[in-house]
Amino acid sequence: MSVSQQFGSDNYAGICPEAWDAMQQANIGSLTAYGEDEWTTRAANAFRTLFETDCEVFFAFNGTAANSLALAALCQSYNSVICSSYAHVETDECGAPEFFSNGSKLLVARTDSAKLTAQDVRSLATCRADIHYPKPRAVTITQPTETGELYSLEEIRALSATCRELGLRLHMDGSRFANACATLGCSPAEMTWQAGVDVLCFGGTKNGMAVGEAILFFDRALADGFDYRCKQAGQLASKMRFLSAPWVGLLESGAWLRNGAHANACAQRLAAALQTVPGVELMFPVQANGVFLRGPEKLLPGLQDRGWRFYTFIGGGARFMFAWDSDPARVDELAADIATCSAA
Amino acid sequence: MSVSQQFGSDNYAGICPEAWDAMQQANIGSLTAYGEDEWTTRAANAFRTLFETDCEVFFAFNGTAANSLALAALCQSYNSVICSSYAHVETDECGAPEFFSNGSKLLVARTDSAKLTAQDVRSLATCRADIHYPKPRAVTITQPTETGELYSLEEIRALSATCRELGLRLHMDGSRFANACATLGCSPAEMTWQAGVDVLCFGGTKNGMAVGEAILFFDRALADGFDYRCKQAGQLASKMRFLSAPWVGLLESGAWLRNGAHANACAQRLAAALQTVPGVELMFPVQANGVFLRGPEKLLPGLQDRGWRFYTFIGGGARFMFAWDSDPARVDELAADIATCSAA
Amino acid sequence: MSVSQQFGSDNYAGICPEAWDAMQQANIGSLTAYGEDEWTTRAANAFRTLFETDCEVFFAFNGTAANSLALAALCQSYNSVICSSYAHVETDECGAPEFFSNGSKLLVARTDSAKLTAQDVRSLATCRADIHYPKPRAVTITQPTETGELYSLEEIRALSATCRELGLRLHMDGSRFANACATLGCSPAEMTWQAGVDVLCFGGTKNGMAVGEAILFFDRALADGFDYRCKQAGQLASKMRFLSAPWVGLLESGAWLRNGAHANACAQRLAAALQTVPGVELMFPVQANGVFLRGPEKLLPGLQDRGWRFYTFIGGGARFMFAWDSDPARVDELAADIATCSAA
Amino acid sequence: MSVSQQFGSDNYAGICPEAWDAMQQANIGSLTAYGEDEWTTRAANAFRTLFETDCEVFFAFNGTAANSLALAALCQSYNSVICSSYAHVETDECGAPEFFSNGSKLLVARTDSAKLTAQDVRSLATCRADIHYPKPRAVTITQPTETGELYSLEEIRALSATCRELGLRLHMDGSRFANACATLGCSPAEMTWQAGVDVLCFGGTKNGMAVGEAILFFDRALADGFDYRCKQAGQLASKMRFLSAPWVGLLESGAWLRNGAHANACAQRLAAALQTVPGVELMFPVQANGVFLRGPEKLLPGLQDRGWRFYTFIGGGARFMFAWDSDPARVDELAADIATCSAA
Repeated sequence: MSVSQQFGSDNYAGICPEAWDAMQQANIGSLTAYGEDEWTTRAANAFRTLFETDCEVFFAFNGTAANSLALAALCQSYNSVICSSYAHVETDECGAPEFFSNGSKLLVARTDSAKLTAQDVRSLATCRADIHYPKPRAVTITQPTETGELYSLEEIRALSATCRELGLRLHMDGSRFANACATLGCSPAEMTWQAGVDVLCFGGTKNGMAVGEAILFFDRALADGFDYRCKQAGQLASKMRFLSAPWVGLLESGAWLRNGAHANACAQRLAAALQTVPGVELMFPVQANGVFLRGPEKLLPGLQDRGWRFYTFIGGGARFMFAWDSDPARVDELAADIATCSAA
Repeated sequence: MSVSQQFGSDNYAGICPEAWDAMQQANIGSLTAYGEDEWTTRAANAFRTLFETDCEVFFAFNGTAANSLALAALCQSYNSVICSSYAHVETDECGAPEFFSNGSKLLVARTDSAKLTAQDVRSLATCRADIHYPKPRAVTITQPTETGELYSLEEIRALSATCRELGLRLHMDGSRFANACATLGCSPAEMTWQAGVDVLCFGGTKNGMAVGEAILFFDRALADGFDYRCKQAGQLASKMRFLSAPWVGLLESGAWLRNGAHANACAQRLAAALQTVPGVELMFPVQANGVFLRGPEKLLPGLQDRGWRFYTFIGGGARFMFAWDSDPARVDELAADIATCSAA
Repeated sequence: MSVSQQFGSDNYAGICPEAWDAMQQANIGSLTAYGEDEWTTRAANAFRTLFETDCEVFFAFNGTAANSLALAALCQSYNSVICSSYAHVETDECGAPEFFSNGSKLLVARTDSAKLTAQDVRSLATCRADIHYPKPRAVTITQPTETGELYSLEEIRALSATCRELGLRLHMDGSRFANACATLGCSPAEMTWQAGVDVLCFGGTKNGMAVGEAILFFDRALADGFDYRCKQAGQLASKMRFLSAPWVGLLESGAWLRNGAHANACAQRLAAALQTVPGVELMFPVQANGVFLRGPEKLLPGLQDRGWRFYTFIGGGARFMFAWDSDPARVDELAADIATCSAA
Repeated sequence: MSVSQQFGSDNYAGICPEAWDAMQQANIGSLTAYGEDEWTTRAANAFRTLFETDCEVFFAFNGTAANSLALAALCQSYNSVICSSYAHVETDECGAPEFFSNGSKLLVARTDSAKLTAQDVRSLATCRADIHYPKPRAVTITQPTETGELYSLEEIRALSATCRELGLRLHMDGSRFANACATLGCSPAEMTWQAGVDVLCFGGTKNGMAVGEAILFFDRALADGFDYRCKQAGQLASKMRFLSAPWVGLLESGAWLRNGAHANACAQRLAAALQTVPGVELMFPVQANGVFLRGPEKLLPGLQDRGWRFYTFIGGGARFMFAWDSDPARVDELAADIATCSAA
């Protein structure tokens, strides 16, 4: 709770105007339920247009469910999923992937990087071939990563090539997918199916919606029965229009990309301001909407004293995340306070 | 999809003004996530005030999840849940209760009634006591039932007394709870914990929200770990304010009850109009917001020809459901068409 | 526990000589584990020879697991399995099928017959096609049934034809498969894959083993990953030779069929003796190794007074089951006591 | 498969005479099923006598199931289990713990030791307290460890003290429990409940049985419903006498301890012989029935050429495991070949 804006999480932001207006329009009259309405059809088509392919599109309530359901669709319970040790599915989902898949184990790369390499995948997928080791079936990468870094198209292609070679499917956790597109300046198609991604979870919540993620299957065969899977898992909205209309607002207006670009710009703004602050160090390259920093011992307590909220769960530094509504002036206040507190 | 209003489901309605306005207010500024915001606290307290007790309150996205999670909290995988053969958890959840509980079996009363009796519970709970039969642990009743009927307070008390005697917990599926309160004219407290209900799932979607149900544990001990359970099962909203604020709008304004009463009145209006229509029969007493009817062979096709939507999955008759926004004039049009088509 | 032999269950019998001798031979020396031993290879080949086809063969510890794992291999969690209301998987497995499959629902034919008909399958599989109803994927039949009745080859072929037409897989619970073969006098191949059965669980325990069932996939593609599934579910024996060698003993010696025939003969012996007993009625045709009977009110208490054990969970009558070691003289004692008690 | 004895695994051994004789005696006559027989009662009581306490005793088919079911009984799906990175439940169960518990996550200590310390437990249990991290509920230790090392009583007491303090339950994977008792020379009671262990899985297979593990709950309240849990999970043997009688043979005769001591002695015999072999190094202290060694590059290939079987999955060295039937002369042959091959 706070009066002045906070950057503790990009979940602190509300609903952006384009999503709000679409919900308002969608709220007129009575419409059929469970996705059999024009808004849902229109949203699904907006995704197909944006991704330049006839993919299967589903809408879930949040990222926990979207990613877990997508992985459950790729795996049987005795399969395993390869991921980075920073992967949100491993560190912050309270066992959701294992719950939805009924036991698919996550095989975690023991490197100190949020980015998975083709070599990480190869070693985890080939180190064992006995029945006592859950059979690797999928690889999941987060774009951008939990540390605000990006996989280049080349890196994604290298990962997907290794996946193909080893009979693995490639899943992309895109809870901040728009931020990745905004930075890389490539098309959604280039970053996903054209680079070999099989399934994408496209985040709507952090992009400016109230709630909602989209799951895109570029290999339509993988989506077989996924509608039933969503229903059984409590992820089928009866008044689906309110989950799909905001996507129409975001995608058709281009707000999805503008929102991502604005958040990224705020992160760059803070990073730039910190260049000149002695003793303050960026923990990771700033490539999306997050800034992770370390500084003098008194820095973090000082910022807390001044009312700033931030998480320290990654590497003990302070994480600041920006959203579609982040106020540049407020970013400057933060930069100034960081300078002051680190100088103290 | 349709221009003129339809009564195929109470999920066809949109968001009511009181819920909408609350969302709009909640959309101002940046707020902390995952329920650590004032709207969520205020909504939970509104429930405690309404139910006159310090219950544990949780918010889930939909009824499938709310009911399944509540039952999973009451059961281990080897337990069973007693329900009516009309229970939504048995007939329309695609195996969700079994999925969330990892196998808890539903023991279905083989009677042709949507209302479970204390005797049904007793016979299903005591017919066997061997290890090959899943140990009964909970009873679930729907209030109002899937047929639009109501349990009287006496009936609920009789069920809970039997539950207590047999060591069973009583769960109430209240996806249309407001409609039940409106008809019985009793307080939410009287219909639930004062009558022996342990857990209630209070439906928000059909009551006028975009999405969202509340789970109320009157026996707080049963809620232990439920916050983790919701998180793991993909039911924790990051921007929780948009799931909780609409409840503030509904509960503090009294709209929750007005909405239920309006929908019930529309059902009564149709039922009354049909009194005078020869050959048309009500399949169940009209006690909530639904009307189930049978008539001459040409009735249903005739209504379809005139563009009416309705379900026939219960007993082959036509189901019409009314919501907070149902237009009485349109109800009259339906009544007139029923008369015409049955006369044809 | 009792001195004189009891017929309460065919699980009361011990290990038959042929199975015992094979275990004894298998106990010589040290052998590789987890099925990489010659006994396991030999047992699997014995099944392939017996069934005249190159099927995939797996060994599990008991019938609960064998049947549940086989169904889990056919279904995703949102699928459903069609069965009779007498099916052991429905009535006596404490929710095991739902547990192993993570929620696949059993769709139970509401007929009063232990035998499923093609029409039962068709109606349950086609009555609904909406997402709220778990998608039917498999049919399971028990041969012989829990009531000791048999499906004829024609009936099995009719069921499998309907399954093929509707895209369903056919599973056979053969916990007493040998008894069925002994009565019908057909080959194992004729009763299974030649009749359209996709997966068979062949019971070893009731056939004379200490523990163990075999799962045969006639459509080898369905067995993909089944070895991992067994391992994860706690059904992979480390000293596998003791699970497989007894099969070598049973199959290579022909004891499997002799054991079944002997048990059936004892059932026929009792049934024949009861022909002449007034007031005693057979509840089901005696076609395998079980006899279900009803009689005067004093019959069952009388038999209990005389120390006889029997179950009454099916239809309230007394169930007597015979095994490979049942003593005909003891069967005659039972027949005599039945006559005496019903005359009393 | 091999003519001369191998030491690749202690699962290569057969059934010891004491277990065999008990099975033979148990095979006489017909006995009631599902554990309602005198052998099962006698075996359970033998455990209570051996452990000097009135614990709850259950019998499962193998260690995968015994350990997974025990952990599932301690946890809800959203809980987590703390273990070593060498723990068998983490490295060699194909996701069984996650499967049986429906998603309980294993929190793995990132140390390079098979032994968990109180500090490891404390840091994993207290590093986070948010809802996105599965709530720690149990700790599992393997005694002896997968590397053949032992926890001293002091170490176990320190772990259990920390567990008590943090509200965690302590589970002991005792697949080689007898070997631990033989080395430490303490009583089973001292090593378990007297040291604060809540649940023990006592391994029978490696101790000389064909199949079977025992699960002992020293806190009887934790066993509530465990019989149903076993049944549902396919771990209830119908002819239970064959799972329980061998325990009677092992426990009443003292063979359980003699078998463990013999296997340990063979490990010591090999370790002693290797003292004098230059270039060969023991990877872990030899405290139970396993020897892990490293040596010159040509050592392992040389041993393979001479027909020796061994695993290299831990640290790349060769693992040799001894059992109740290991032939000391054959151990000497192995020692000689190791000397020869490392000298080569």
